[in-house]
Amino acid sequence: MSTVRVAGVGLTPFGDHGDRAGRDLFAEAAATAIDDAGVDRRAVDRLDYGNFMGVLAEQQAHQAPLMAEAAGLNCPATRYEEACASAGVAIKAGVEAVRAGTADLVVAGGMERMNCLDTGTATDALAIAADELYEVRAGMTFPSAYALMARAYFERFGGNREDLAHIAVKNHANALPNEFAQYQREITVEEALDSPPVAEPLHLYDACPITDGASAVVLVSDEYATTHGLDAPVSITGVGQGGDRLALQDRDRIAETPAATQAAETAYADADIAADAVDVAEVHDCFTIAEALALESLGIAAAGEGITAAREGTTMPDGETPVNLSGGLKAKGHPVGATGGSQIAELTRLLRGDHPNSEHVADATTGVTHNAGGTVASAVVHVLEVAQ
Amino acid sequence: MSTVRVAGVGLTPFGDHGDRAGRDLFAEAAATAIDDAGVDRRAVDRLDYGNFMGVLAEQQAHQAPLMAEAAGLNCPATRYEEACASAGVAIKAGVEAVRAGTADLVVAGGMERMNCLDTGTATDALAIAADELYEVRAGMTFPSAYALMARAYFERFGGNREDLAHIAVKNHANALPNEFAQYQREITVEEALDSPPVAEPLHLYDACPITDGASAVVLVSDEYATTHGLDAPVSITGVGQGGDRLALQDRDRIAETPAATQAAETAYADADIAADAVDVAEVHDCFTIAEALALESLGIAAAGEGITAAREGTTMPDGETPVNLSGGLKAKGHPVGATGGSQIAELTRLLRGDHPNSEHVADATTGVTHNAGGTVASAVVHVLEVAQ
Repeated sequence: MSTVRVAGVGLTPFGDHGDRAGRDLFAEAAATAIDDAGVDRRAVDRLDYGNFMGVLAEQQAHQAPLMAEAAGLNCPATRYEEACASAGVAIKAGVEAVRAGTADLVVAGGMERMNCLDTGTATDALAIAADELYEVRAGMTFPSAYALMARAYFERFGGNREDLAHIAVKNHANALPNEFAQYQREITVEEALDSPPVAEPLHLYDACPITDGASAVVLVSDEYATTHGLDAPVSITGVGQGGDRLALQDRDRIAETPAATQAAETAYADADIAADAVDVAEVHDCFTIAEALALESLGIAAAGEGITAAREGTTMPDGETPVNLSGGLKAKGHPVGATGGSQIAELTRLLRGDHPNSEHVADATTGVTHNAGGTVASAVVHVLEVAQ
Repeated sequence: MSTVRVAGVGLTPFGDHGDRAGRDLFAEAAATAIDDAGVDRRAVDRLDYGNFMGVLAEQQAHQAPLMAEAAGLNCPATRYEEACASAGVAIKAGVEAVRAGTADLVVAGGMERMNCLDTGTATDALAIAADELYEVRAGMTFPSAYALMARAYFERFGGNREDLAHIAVKNHANALPNEFAQYQREITVEEALDSPPVAEPLHLYDACPITDGASAVVLVSDEYATTHGLDAPVSITGVGQGGDRLALQDRDRIAETPAATQAAETAYADADIAADAVDVAEVHDCFTIAEALALESLGIAAAGEGITAAREGTTMPDGETPVNLSGGLKAKGHPVGATGGSQIAELTRLLRGDHPNSEHVADATTGVTHNAGGTVASAVVHVLEVAQ
């Protein structure tokens, strides 16, 4: 089984891209990744592509061949849809193809356009990731679902809005130097606490924004990297996917995310590491509470301790395990179908030393990404390692 | 690399299922496949699931964990969307996972609900598989796109409406004994010729119907089949996927389908067979012309000869290579996201001798399925072989 190297990464800026077509966004990310890798696009074996709501945003399904064409690729292309984990699942498939020897050179990533919908319509569009029959018809939206999870967490473990605010403040500060971030501006705990309520206990500054953007990574086999003299110091050494019941009401407990725990355990076993080997993480903070839950599933924090990690400093840039140095979904932005690829791209930049926040993880060798779908009915974890 | 066995297959009847939820349809197909295989559903390692237009039909994305739950599975689940090739792509991923040793027991298949939309809305919904910017806005629908392909074919190679009618008549006759078929009734060449025009040269009887339905197969490794004493005589020995530009206008020629040719060549090389080893085929006849194109891509007919194969008898049940003994998309029906799984299920039944049309292929050892997306911008071919 070949080691899989990340040979190149590409991102569009995250934010509002107006009328730019999705194909243009993905073409930009893919071109950047291919240039970064220094590979020949005509040699690409396959495209693994994530997109969530293209049917609603652009009335466009069957996007995989379209994106291959836009990116100048001439290869089979597949679209994966796993709600907000779409690109994570796509990249996992690309990694597995390289490992299995069915591909040597893969482009993987994702794209989402969301700002072409007004905020209400976008919220409704996001709700298609929940159970239409038993959640959405009853009025559930994702802010309210994560609010339920936050309340259940507070009830079980303790925690409060100020704990959540520290997560938002950290991620905004991290986004400040990130040229791809939607919000390159700091916020204070007070501003977060004073922001308008969305669904108690979640307020506006607990939520990620509506974002357009694309991400792409180039994956190659160890042999391909060597043969072609590629500079690709970061490898993906572990992958894991987990699943859970789609509707919150069908789960035994909602103050934890077993799908992510399953994904993490699988990925750690795959990479042959323990959780305490993780030096740095990019996790799926669609809402602040989601970061707390992610830390516990990843084993970065013990049960009930994820909520205070930012406040106590362990996940701060100078803490034991910096989390979301990119700015996270909260401040970097969350173009749903692109996010899993953005996490891999940002973590790769962090580990190889060319991220504006790399200074905080100069000695890091091992990082993880955590990408979740819906209320974590699906989750994908990747382990990345760099030779130091 | 393990040989991949088809341990069980399951189908719902194809047709109009009224208000039945998609999850119920897939649960029925999956339960049938699991029972047919005689495996423990709690042991299933992963679900690979295809669906195309669930966002429009049921306002439901993120269907993979939902379908896993409905089917009583407790495993990671992934949705693939490749227009009408969604289930073909899903099953290919399942096969590759078993081969790679990351799974021993996989459920794969797909589901589509379409009759909940009126015919006009369904036609618009199907159009999301075409290029929204450059085809759909200009008024293109799939009947008109395939009509363009038929015209180009006639111009290049010859052929006429009567040739097409023979394809429809054959597939309706094949569907007659198939308990899962939407149309268990014969038609005549005259009826096909006299049916109302849809987009010249295609008339109503050149087109597949609007269909609800689900399909599932259980895939296991050779070792799993042996260890668990499963009766699984049919193996998937070759897989291939091809891609092309999404829009017809961007292709050099439209009287052929190079994505399917690429998929077939890859699958044949993978199975280490030549095209002339194929004894029986299930191909993607969404329109009659599509069957002719498929035969040529598969090497069952030479270029320009696919159009007359039914009329001359070579693809008839008693011909050299029976094609679409299930009834095909034309008469069995085409629940878009389920079709690729239906083809594998039907071919498995044909090869293992328990299909109502198995008598026509009693000596067959090798079959292929051909599943196409859009105007064949994507295509998946599987080679199935049975020990005789």
